[in-house]
Amino acid sequence: MKLYDLELSGNCYKVRLFAALANIDLEIAAVDFLGGEHKRPPLTDLNPWGELPILVDGDLVLRDSQAILVHLAGTHGGAAWWPAEPQLQAEIVQWLSTAANEIQHGPASARLVDKFGYAIDKAGTLARAARILPLLDAHLAQREWLALSRPTIADCAMFPYVALAPEGGIDLSPYPNIVRWIDRVKRLPGYVAMPGT
Amino acid sequence: MKLYDLELSGNCYKVRLFAALANIDLEIAAVDFLGGEHKRPPLTDLNPWGELPILVDGDLVLRDSQAILVHLAGTHGGAAWWPAEPQLQAEIVQWLSTAANEIQHGPASARLVDKFGYAIDKAGTLARAARILPLLDAHLAQREWLALSRPTIADCAMFPYVALAPEGGIDLSPYPNIVRWIDRVKRLPGYVAMPGT
Repeated sequence: MKLYDLELSGNCYKVRLFAALANIDLEIAAVDFLGGEHKRPPLTDLNPWGELPILVDGDLVLRDSQAILVHLAGTHGGAAWWPAEPQLQAEIVQWLSTAANEIQHGPASARLVDKFGYAIDKAGTLARAARILPLLDAHLAQREWLALSRPTIADCAMFPYVALAPEGGIDLSPYPNIVRWIDRVKRLPGYVAMPGT
Repeated sequence: MKLYDLELSGNCYKVRLFAALANIDLEIAAVDFLGGEHKRPPLTDLNPWGELPILVDGDLVLRDSQAILVHLAGTHGGAAWWPAEPQLQAEIVQWLSTAANEIQHGPASARLVDKFGYAIDKAGTLARAARILPLLDAHLAQREWLALSRPTIADCAMFPYVALAPEGGIDLSPYPNIVRWIDRVKRLPGYVAMPGT
Protein backbone atom coordinates (compact mmCIF):
# COMPACT_ATOMS: atom_id res chain seq x y z
CA MET A 1 0.00 0.00 0.00
CA LYS A 2 1.22 3.44 -0.94
CA LEU A 3 0.37 6.66 0.87
CA TYR A 4 0.93 9.92 -0.98
CA ASP A 5 1.89 12.03 1.97
CA LEU A 6 2.75 15.47 3.27
CA GLU A 7 4.49 15.46 6.63
CA LEU A 8 2.90 18.75 7.80
CA SER A 9 -0.66 17.70 6.88
CA GLY A 10 -2.78 16.61 9.82
CA ASN A 11 -5.02 14.71 7.41
CA CYS A 12 -2.02 12.68 6.22
CA TYR A 13 -0.93 12.24 9.82
CA LYS A 14 -4.29 10.64 10.68
CA VAL A 15 -3.29 7.80 8.36
CA ARG A 16 0.35 7.56 9.46
CA LEU A 17 -0.74 7.57 13.11
CA PHE A 18 -3.31 4.82 12.66
CA ALA A 19 -0.95 2.66 10.58
CA ALA A 20 1.67 2.97 13.31
CA LEU A 21 -0.81 2.11 16.09
CA ALA A 22 -2.20 -0.88 14.16
CA ASN A 23 1.21 -2.01 12.92
CA ILE A 24 0.31 -1.70 9.23
CA ASP A 25 3.10 -1.29 6.70
CA LEU A 26 2.71 1.71 4.41
CA GLU A 27 4.98 2.82 1.62
CA ILE A 28 5.22 6.58 2.16
CA ALA A 29 5.57 8.70 -0.99
CA ALA A 30 6.50 12.26 0.01
CA VAL A 31 4.73 14.72 -2.30
CA ASP A 32 6.32 18.02 -3.38
CA PHE A 33 3.45 20.10 -2.01
CA LEU A 34 5.11 23.51 -2.42
CA GLY A 35 5.90 22.53 -6.01
CA GLY A 36 2.24 21.70 -6.59
CA GLU A 37 2.80 18.03 -7.42
CA HIS A 38 -0.64 17.18 -5.98
CA LYS A 39 -2.29 19.69 -8.34
CA ARG A 40 -1.20 18.03 -11.61
CA PRO A 41 -1.01 14.57 -13.21
CA PRO A 42 -0.27 11.88 -12.34
CA LEU A 43 -1.58 12.70 -8.83
CA THR A 44 -4.74 14.40 -10.10
CA ASP A 45 -5.46 11.20 -12.04
CA LEU A 46 -5.53 9.45 -8.66
CA ASN A 47 -7.34 12.28 -6.87
CA PRO A 48 -8.99 14.89 -9.12
CA TRP A 49 -9.53 17.03 -6.03
CA GLY A 50 -5.85 17.86 -5.88
CA GLU A 51 -5.53 17.02 -2.19
CA LEU A 52 -3.58 14.77 0.13
CA PRO A 53 -3.54 12.12 1.46
CA ILE A 54 -4.16 9.57 -1.28
CA LEU A 55 -4.01 5.84 -0.55
CA VAL A 56 -3.44 3.28 -3.29
CA ASP A 57 -4.05 -0.35 -2.31
CA GLY A 58 -4.03 -2.53 -5.42
CA ASP A 59 -6.88 -1.30 -7.60
CA LEU A 60 -8.40 0.77 -4.81
CA VAL A 61 -7.67 4.50 -4.69
CA LEU A 62 -9.03 6.55 -1.78
CA ARG A 63 -8.87 10.32 -1.41
CA ASP A 64 -10.35 11.08 2.01
CA SER A 65 -8.52 10.54 5.29
CA GLN A 66 -11.61 9.25 7.09
CA ALA A 67 -12.34 6.78 4.29
CA ILE A 68 -8.72 5.64 4.33
CA LEU A 69 -9.00 4.95 8.06
CA VAL A 70 -12.13 2.83 7.49
CA HIS A 71 -10.42 0.82 4.76
CA LEU A 72 -7.14 0.32 6.62
CA ALA A 73 -8.86 -0.59 9.87
CA GLY A 74 -11.50 -2.82 8.33
CA THR A 75 -9.19 -4.62 5.94
CA HIS A 76 -5.84 -4.64 7.73
CA GLY A 77 -6.31 -3.36 11.28
CA GLY A 78 -8.86 -5.57 12.96
CA ALA A 79 -12.28 -5.19 14.52
CA ALA A 80 -10.92 -3.46 17.62
CA TRP A 81 -10.44 -0.30 15.53
CA TRP A 82 -13.46 -0.64 13.22
CA PRO A 83 -16.01 -3.25 14.31
CA ALA A 84 -18.35 -5.08 11.96
CA GLU A 85 -21.58 -4.12 13.77
CA PRO A 86 -23.28 -1.18 12.05
CA GLN A 87 -24.47 0.25 15.37
CA LEU A 88 -20.88 0.44 16.61
CA GLN A 89 -19.69 1.75 13.25
CA ALA A 90 -22.30 4.51 13.52
CA GLU A 91 -20.95 5.55 16.91
CA ILE A 92 -17.51 5.95 15.30
CA VAL A 93 -18.88 7.68 12.19
CA GLN A 94 -20.23 10.45 14.42
CA TRP A 95 -16.59 11.37 15.09
CA LEU A 96 -15.47 10.92 11.50
CA SER A 97 -18.11 13.52 10.60
CA THR A 98 -16.94 15.80 13.42
CA ALA A 99 -13.37 15.54 12.13
CA ALA A 100 -14.47 16.47 8.60
CA ASN A 101 -16.88 19.19 9.73
CA GLU A 102 -16.30 21.06 12.98
CA ILE A 103 -12.62 20.20 13.45
CA GLN A 104 -11.61 20.72 9.81
CA HIS A 105 -13.39 24.08 9.67
CA GLY A 106 -12.47 25.05 13.23
CA PRO A 107 -8.99 24.39 14.67
CA ALA A 108 -7.58 22.87 11.47
CA SER A 109 -8.55 25.92 9.41
CA ALA A 110 -7.27 28.32 12.10
CA ARG A 111 -3.89 26.57 11.72
CA LEU A 112 -4.05 26.91 7.92
CA VAL A 113 -4.36 30.67 8.38
CA ASP A 114 -1.63 31.09 11.00
CA LYS A 115 0.90 28.57 9.74
CA PHE A 116 0.38 28.60 5.97
CA GLY A 117 -1.29 31.94 5.26
CA TYR A 118 -4.51 30.57 3.79
CA ALA A 119 -7.11 33.26 2.97
CA ILE A 120 -9.80 31.91 5.28
CA ASP A 121 -12.01 33.94 7.64
CA LYS A 122 -9.98 33.43 10.83
CA ALA A 123 -12.70 34.73 13.17
CA GLY A 124 -15.08 32.08 11.81
CA THR A 125 -12.56 29.31 12.45
CA LEU A 126 -12.02 30.51 16.02
CA ALA A 127 -15.76 30.72 16.64
CA ARG A 128 -16.21 27.15 15.45
CA ALA A 129 -13.30 26.01 17.63
CA ALA A 130 -14.75 27.84 20.64
CA ARG A 131 -18.01 25.94 20.13
CA ILE A 132 -16.65 22.43 19.47
CA LEU A 133 -13.82 22.23 22.00
CA PRO A 134 -16.02 22.63 25.11
CA LEU A 135 -18.39 19.99 23.71
CA LEU A 136 -15.45 17.66 23.13
CA ASP A 137 -14.09 18.38 26.60
CA ALA A 138 -17.46 17.61 28.17
CA HIS A 139 -17.75 14.40 26.17
CA LEU A 140 -14.36 13.28 27.48
CA ALA A 141 -15.19 14.11 31.10
CA GLN A 142 -16.55 10.60 31.71
CA ARG A 143 -14.75 8.73 28.94
CA GLU A 144 -11.18 7.81 28.12
CA TRP A 145 -11.82 7.45 24.37
CA LEU A 146 -14.24 9.06 21.94
CA ALA A 147 -16.24 5.94 21.08
CA LEU A 148 -16.77 2.33 22.22
CA SER A 149 -14.73 2.72 25.46
CA ARG A 150 -11.52 1.89 23.59
CA PRO A 151 -9.18 3.48 21.07
CA THR A 152 -10.71 3.39 17.58
CA ILE A 153 -10.29 5.24 14.31
CA ALA A 154 -12.53 7.90 15.88
CA ASP A 155 -9.58 8.94 18.02
CA CYS A 156 -7.17 8.77 15.07
CA ALA A 157 -9.43 11.02 12.95
CA MET A 158 -9.90 13.59 15.71
CA PHE A 159 -6.46 13.64 17.33
CA PRO A 160 -4.25 15.46 14.79
CA TYR A 161 -6.06 18.77 14.40
CA VAL A 162 -7.12 18.92 18.05
CA ALA A 163 -3.54 18.35 19.19
CA LEU A 164 -2.32 20.90 16.60
CA ALA A 165 -4.83 23.56 17.70
CA PRO A 166 -2.12 25.68 19.40
CA GLU A 167 -0.56 26.16 15.93
CA GLY A 168 -3.76 28.04 15.06
CA GLY A 169 -3.49 30.22 18.13
CA ILE A 170 -5.94 28.15 20.17
CA ASP A 171 -5.06 27.48 23.82
CA LEU A 172 -6.08 24.01 24.97
CA SER A 173 -5.43 24.63 28.68
CA PRO A 174 -9.11 25.50 29.37
CA TYR A 175 -9.96 21.94 28.28
CA PRO A 176 -8.35 19.58 30.82
CA ASN A 177 -10.22 16.49 29.60
CA ILE A 178 -8.96 17.10 26.06
CA VAL A 179 -5.42 17.55 27.36
CA ARG A 180 -5.64 14.25 29.24
CA TRP A 181 -7.05 12.50 26.13
CA ILE A 182 -4.13 13.84 24.06
CA ASP A 183 -1.75 12.40 26.64
CA ARG A 184 -3.54 9.04 26.52
CA VAL A 185 -3.22 8.89 22.73
CA LYS A 186 0.48 9.71 23.00
CA ARG A 187 0.99 6.77 25.36
CA LEU A 188 -0.62 4.21 23.01
CA PRO A 189 1.82 1.49 21.91
CA GLY A 190 3.27 2.38 18.52
CA TYR A 191 2.34 6.08 18.72
CA VAL A 192 4.21 8.33 16.30
CA ALA A 193 4.29 12.12 16.47
CA MET A 194 4.22 14.76 13.76
CA PRO A 195 5.81 18.23 13.88
CA GLY A 196 3.63 20.38 16.13
CA THR A 197 2.11 17.64 18.28
CA MET B 1 -37.24 4.40 16.23
CA LYS B 2 -37.78 8.08 16.83
CA LEU B 3 -36.33 10.89 14.73
CA TYR B 4 -36.23 14.35 16.28
CA ASP B 5 -36.80 16.33 13.13
CA LEU B 6 -36.98 19.73 11.49
CA GLU B 7 -38.73 19.74 8.14
CA LEU B 8 -36.55 22.53 6.68
CA SER B 9 -33.25 20.91 7.72
CA GLY B 10 -31.39 19.16 4.92
CA ASN B 11 -29.55 17.10 7.52
CA CYS B 12 -32.86 15.80 8.87
CA TYR B 13 -34.06 15.26 5.31
CA LYS B 14 -31.08 12.95 4.63
CA VAL B 15 -32.58 10.60 7.21
CA ARG B 16 -36.21 10.97 6.09
CA LEU B 17 -35.17 10.42 2.47
CA PHE B 18 -33.18 7.28 3.21
CA ALA B 19 -35.89 5.83 5.46
CA ALA B 20 -38.43 6.38 2.67
CA LEU B 21 -36.19 4.79 0.01
CA ALA B 22 -35.37 1.80 2.23
CA ASN B 23 -38.92 1.46 3.55
CA ILE B 24 -37.93 1.93 7.19
CA ASP B 25 -40.58 3.11 9.65
CA LEU B 26 -39.61 6.18 11.65
CA GLU B 27 -41.60 7.96 14.31
CA ILE B 28 -41.13 11.63 13.42
CA ALA B 29 -41.02 14.06 16.36
CA ALA B 30 -41.24 17.60 15.02
CA VAL B 31 -39.02 19.89 17.11
CA ASP B 32 -39.93 23.52 17.85
CA PHE B 33 -36.74 24.90 16.32
CA LEU B 34 -37.71 28.57 16.40
CA GLY B 35 -38.63 28.11 20.06
CA GLY B 36 -35.18 26.63 20.75
CA GLU B 37 -36.45 23.24 21.89
CA HIS B 38 -33.24 21.61 20.59
CA LYS B 39 -31.12 23.97 22.73
CA ARG B 40 -32.48 22.86 26.11
CA PRO B 41 -33.33 19.68 28.03
CA PRO B 42 -34.59 17.10 27.40
CA LEU B 43 -33.18 17.33 23.84
CA THR B 44 -29.73 18.48 24.97
CA ASP B 45 -29.62 15.41 27.22
CA LEU B 46 -29.92 13.37 24.02
CA ASN B 47 -27.61 15.63 22.00
CA PRO B 48 -25.47 18.07 24.00
CA TRP B 49 -24.55 19.76 20.74
CA GLY B 50 -28.03 21.26 20.47
CA GLU B 51 -28.52 20.17 16.87
CA LEU B 52 -30.89 18.12 14.76
CA PRO B 53 -31.45 15.40 13.66
CA ILE B 54 -31.31 13.06 16.65
CA LEU B 55 -32.18 9.38 16.27
CA VAL B 56 -33.21 7.25 19.23
CA ASP B 57 -33.32 3.48 18.61
CA GLY B 58 -33.73 1.65 21.90
CA ASP B 59 -30.67 2.51 23.98
CA LEU B 60 -28.81 3.98 21.02
CA VAL B 61 -28.81 7.76 20.55
CA LEU B 62 -27.10 9.23 17.47
CA ARG B 63 -26.53 12.91 16.76
CA ASP B 64 -24.98 13.04 13.29
CA SER B 65 -26.89 12.57 10.05
CA GLN B 66 -24.12 10.53 8.40
CA ALA B 67 -23.86 8.24 11.43
CA ILE B 68 -27.64 7.84 11.47
CA LEU B 69 -27.54 6.74 7.82
CA VAL B 70 -24.86 4.12 8.62
CA HIS B 71 -26.90 2.76 11.51
CA LEU B 72 -30.23 2.72 9.67
CA ALA B 73 -28.75 1.18 6.54
CA GLY B 74 -26.58 -1.36 8.29
CA THR B 75 -29.15 -2.44 10.83
CA HIS B 76 -32.47 -1.97 9.03
CA GLY B 77 -31.78 -1.15 5.37
CA GLY B 78 -29.72 -3.97 3.96
CA ALA B 79 -26.31 -4.40 2.38
CA ALA B 80 -27.35 -2.74 -0.88
CA TRP B 81 -27.19 0.62 0.89
CA TRP B 82 -24.27 -0.05 3.26
CA PRO B 83 -22.29 -3.20 2.45
CA ALA B 84 -20.32 -5.23 4.98
CA GLU B 85 -16.98 -5.09 3.11
CA PRO B 86 -14.72 -2.36 4.57
CA GLN B 87 -13.31 -1.51 1.13
CA LEU B 88 -16.81 -0.76 -0.14
CA GLN B 89 -17.70 1.07 3.07
CA ALA B 90 -14.61 3.24 2.55
CA GLU B 91 -15.77 4.20 -0.93
CA ILE B 92 -19.04 5.40 0.60
CA VAL B 93 -17.34 7.13 3.56
CA GLN B 94 -15.51 9.37 1.07
CA TRP B 95 -18.90 10.88 0.29
CA LEU B 96 -20.06 11.00 3.91
CA SER B 97 -16.97 13.13 4.57
CA THR B 98 -17.69 15.31 1.55
CA ALA B 99 -21.24 15.85 2.81
CA ALA B 100 -19.94 16.90 6.27
CA ASN B 101 -17.07 18.98 4.91
CA GLU B 102 -17.31 20.62 1.48
CA ILE B 103 -21.09 20.43 1.06
CA GLN B 104 -21.95 21.47 4.64
CA HIS B 105 -19.55 24.42 4.48
CA GLY B 106 -20.30 25.23 0.83
CA PRO B 107 -23.85 25.11 -0.56
CA ALA B 108 -25.50 24.19 2.75
CA SER B 109 -23.95 27.19 4.52
CA ALA B 110 -24.77 29.53 1.62
CA ARG B 111 -28.40 28.50 2.12
CA LEU B 112 -28.15 29.15 5.88
CA VAL B 113 -27.14 32.73 5.07
CA ASP B 114 -29.75 33.43 2.39
CA LYS B 115 -32.70 31.56 3.87
CA PHE B 116 -32.16 31.83 7.62
CA GLY B 117 -29.88 34.87 8.03
CA TYR B 118 -26.96 33.04 9.66
CA ALA B 119 -23.89 35.24 10.25
CA ILE B 120 -21.53 33.18 8.09
CA ASP B 121 -18.99 34.52 5.58
CA LYS B 122 -21.12 34.12 2.42
CA ALA B 123 -18.21 34.64 0.01
CA GLY B 124 -16.37 31.73 1.62
CA THR B 125 -19.38 29.45 1.23
CA LEU B 126 -19.72 30.39 -2.45
CA ALA B 127 -16.00 29.83 -3.05
CA ARG B 128 -16.24 26.35 -1.53
CA ALA B 129 -19.34 25.60 -3.62
CA ALA B 130 -17.58 26.82 -6.78
CA ARG B 131 -14.76 24.38 -6.07
CA ILE B 132 -16.76 21.28 -5.08
CA LEU B 133 -19.60 21.39 -7.62
CA PRO B 134 -17.38 21.07 -10.73
CA LEU B 135 -15.56 18.16 -9.06
CA LEU B 136 -18.88 16.51 -8.30
CA ASP B 137 -20.12 17.16 -11.84
CA ALA B 138 -16.97 15.60 -13.31
CA HIS B 139 -17.29 12.59 -11.00
CA LEU B 140 -20.84 12.04 -12.24
CA ALA B 141 -19.90 12.33 -15.92
CA GLN B 142 -19.25 8.59 -16.19
CA ARG B 143 -21.35 7.39 -13.26
CA GLU B 144 -25.02 7.24 -12.38
CA TRP B 145 -24.43 7.12 -8.61
CA LEU B 146 -21.74 8.45 -6.33
CA ALA B 147 -20.35 5.10 -5.16
CA LEU B 148 -20.54 1.36 -5.95
CA SER B 149 -22.49 1.83 -9.23
CA ARG B 150 -25.78 1.81 -7.33
CA PRO B 151 -27.74 4.07 -4.98
CA THR B 152 -26.23 3.99 -1.50
CA ILE B 153 -26.27 6.19 1.57
CA ALA B 154 -23.56 8.21 -0.21
CA ASP B 155 -26.29 9.59 -2.46
CA CYS B 156 -28.65 10.17 0.48
CA ALA B 157 -25.97 12.11 2.38
CA MET B 158 -25.04 14.28 -0.60
CA PHE B 159 -28.42 14.86 -2.24
CA PRO B 160 -30.22 17.28 0.11
CA TYR B 161 -27.81 20.22 0.19
CA VAL B 162 -26.78 19.82 -3.44
CA ALA B 163 -30.40 19.84 -4.56
CA LEU B 164 -31.09 22.79 -2.22
CA ALA B 165 -28.12 24.83 -3.55
CA PRO B 166 -30.38 27.26 -5.45
CA GLU B 167 -31.79 28.35 -2.07
CA GLY B 168 -28.28 29.65 -1.35
CA GLY B 169 -28.16 31.56 -4.61
CA ILE B 170 -26.17 28.85 -6.43
CA ASP B 171 -27.21 28.04 -10.00
CA LEU B 172 -26.88 24.33 -10.82
CA SER B 173 -27.42 24.72 -14.57
CA PRO B 174 -23.65 24.79 -15.31
CA TYR B 175 -23.50 21.26 -13.87
CA PRO B 176 -25.55 19.02 -16.20
CA ASN B 177 -24.31 15.77 -14.67
CA ILE B 178 -25.38 16.93 -11.22
CA VAL B 179 -28.79 17.94 -12.59
CA ARG B 180 -29.23 14.49 -14.15
CA TRP B 181 -28.16 12.79 -10.89
CA ILE B 182 -30.72 14.86 -8.97
CA ASP B 183 -33.36 13.68 -11.43
CA ARG B 184 -32.26 10.06 -10.99
CA VAL B 185 -32.57 10.33 -7.20
CA LYS B 186 -36.04 11.83 -7.59
CA ARG B 187 -37.14 8.84 -9.65
CA LEU B 188 -36.02 6.24 -7.07
CA PRO B 189 -38.93 4.15 -5.74
CA GLY B 190 -40.16 5.62 -2.46
CA TYR B 191 -38.54 9.04 -3.01
CA VAL B 192 -39.92 11.82 -0.82
CA ALA B 193 -39.26 15.52 -1.34
CA MET B 194 -38.67 18.34 1.10
CA PRO B 195 -39.55 22.03 0.65
CA GLY B 196 -37.02 23.49 -1.79
CA THR B 197 -36.08 20.31 -3.65
